[in-house]
Amino acid sequence: MSILVVGSVAYDTLETPEGRREDILGGAATHFSTAASFFTDVHLVGVVGDDFQDEHVEFLKGRGINLAGLEVVTNGKTFRWSGHYLNDLNQAETRQTDLGVFADFDPKLSEGDKERPYLFLANIHPSLQLKVLEQMKAPRLTAMDTMNLWIDTTRDELQKVIERVDMIFVNDAEARALSGRGNVTLAARRIMEWGPKTVVIKRGEYGALVYQGDMVFFSPAMPMERVVDPTGAGDTFAGGFMGYVAKAGSTGTGDLKRAAVLGGVMASFQVEDFGLDRMRRLTHEEIDGRFAEFSELASFDRSPVFSK
Amino acid sequence: MSILVVGSVAYDTLETPEGRREDILGGAATHFSTAASFFTDVHLVGVVGDDFQDEHVEFLKGRGINLAGLEVVTNGKTFRWSGHYLNDLNQAETRQTDLGVFADFDPKLSEGDKERPYLFLANIHPSLQLKVLEQMKAPRLTAMDTMNLWIDTTRDELQKVIERVDMIFVNDAEARALSGRGNVTLAARRIMEWGPKTVVIKRGEYGALVYQGDMVFFSPAMPMERVVDPTGAGDTFAGGFMGYVAKAGSTGTGDLKRAAVLGGVMASFQVEDFGLDRMRRLTHEEIDGRFAEFSELASFDRSPVFSK
Repeated sequence: MSILVVGSVAYDTLETPEGRREDILGGAATHFSTAASFFTDVHLVGVVGDDFQDEHVEFLKGRGINLAGLEVVTNGKTFRWSGHYLNDLNQAETRQTDLGVFADFDPKLSEGDKERPYLFLANIHPSLQLKVLEQMKAPRLTAMDTMNLWIDTTRDELQKVIERVDMIFVNDAEARALSGRGNVTLAARRIMEWGPKTVVIKRGEYGALVYQGDMVFFSPAMPMERVVDPTGAGDTFAGGFMGYVAKAGSTGTGDLKRAAVLGGVMASFQVEDFGLDRMRRLTHEEIDGRFAEFSELASFDRSPVFSK
Repeated sequence: MSILVVGSVAYDTLETPEGRREDILGGAATHFSTAASFFTDVHLVGVVGDDFQDEHVEFLKGRGINLAGLEVVTNGKTFRWSGHYLNDLNQAETRQTDLGVFADFDPKLSEGDKERPYLFLANIHPSLQLKVLEQMKAPRLTAMDTMNLWIDTTRDELQKVIERVDMIFVNDAEARALSGRGNVTLAARRIMEWGPKTVVIKRGEYGALVYQGDMVFFSPAMPMERVVDPTGAGDTFAGGFMGYVAKAGSTGTGDLKRAAVLGGVMASFQVEDFGLDRMRRLTHEEIDGRFAEFSELASFDRSPVFSK
């Protein structure tokens, strides 16, 4: 079943210990869509300037991503972000942000998009997230991402969004800041009390924790010998996760666990090259291959030690 | 098969957000022995003063731990450590250390102990670790722990120990400091080049990574709602790990993975109460029960997504 994603499409200039790239395709909605497109139909709602290049439109369309909801603003400039990971691959340091046309982003959904069964609200201002939620007719599953900026500055609006979604993706620090609880399990339980049935804690190289009711899943991450560019890994994780959920049409425990592992699989490919370069050449066979590697990585003989 | 452990037996005074305890039984060798004793015979080599209390001798003996190698120094004082975890449960802050009789610890093994098949060198000065190693006749498996202090101050001696053991337990930061490599997988590979066939990276609440040859295992940790006292969790992990390895008599991939999970199981019990209080009432049935919970926590349907 198809997913609607609303969020940023951007050009990134970034530097990592492995090199530097200028104005490469990025943005949360872009990374999410690309990862999810390996599993299901994706409809992207976002905004770019008329400097957005044809080759990038072609790449996204080539991945089967529907761009009817991608507004192109004449005489506008696409959102640009510049940052580096020179000291710590886990944490980008922003050098410059130029919102461009994204500053006036005001997502209006088409009649078709209002009917999509799955919705992912990428990390944008909570008031925009709320606006999108209010336009949806009867989604099967709504999910959101956020960031510390909104937790710190627009807490009330953010709270309203959280109370209305089914699933939230946050990292450890965001879960703690949101909930005011230092323990990540207690943080997840607090957030579930507000509404979301599922809380996904992204922990980068340490994998992820998925909470749903009383269920907890410890999702593995592949130890990488080389991380070329971590940009977009979190959105790629969410894209793989939600893409699989939409494909399976289920958030039962079994499918939810597989979704989390597949999020990790997609993120493990994502960091192997700059921007979307690894995604451009990724195949379903490779995804299945790495999924099998994740299985090996995390599986063990479950028979009891003492009892017969 | 039986394990020989050489290391500290101590009295700890500690404070955590859950409370304060004074002069409770602790020390790396104590925690390791207690955890390992649920799986196999343990022989402890260490030193205490004549202030070491009978009830603690009885506790250790009650767990089946052989104390023939525990030297008692007349008019000596047992090693005392005092610390707190008020700001961060992952990192103890030391308030005071009084080595007492441990300052002159000079482990001399009995003929019986020289013949033990499994050896664990808890975190003590590398020159003492080397001395113990040199006394061993023909161990099946030797393993060691260490800490940043020795990495920083006695690197040459530490290196000699590492080159002679089969297995090493370190945390992320220690692996990086030892290897000079920021990437934990490259760090583990570098350490394996020096000699150890198995490198175990302890990551606290994030579980552990086990490297052996080309095999990597992502071992889960139970997300705990409440951590009462993290003291000794790392030694307890190593005790459960080595205890299972000695019980199984194998470091084949399958047993090694189970050993790591059982290390996590034992550590998850350890942090539930102060000092050794949880261990005092722990049963084999509870260990099997939590092992089953770890299996649920980390298991997922491994069938491929795309291929048939």
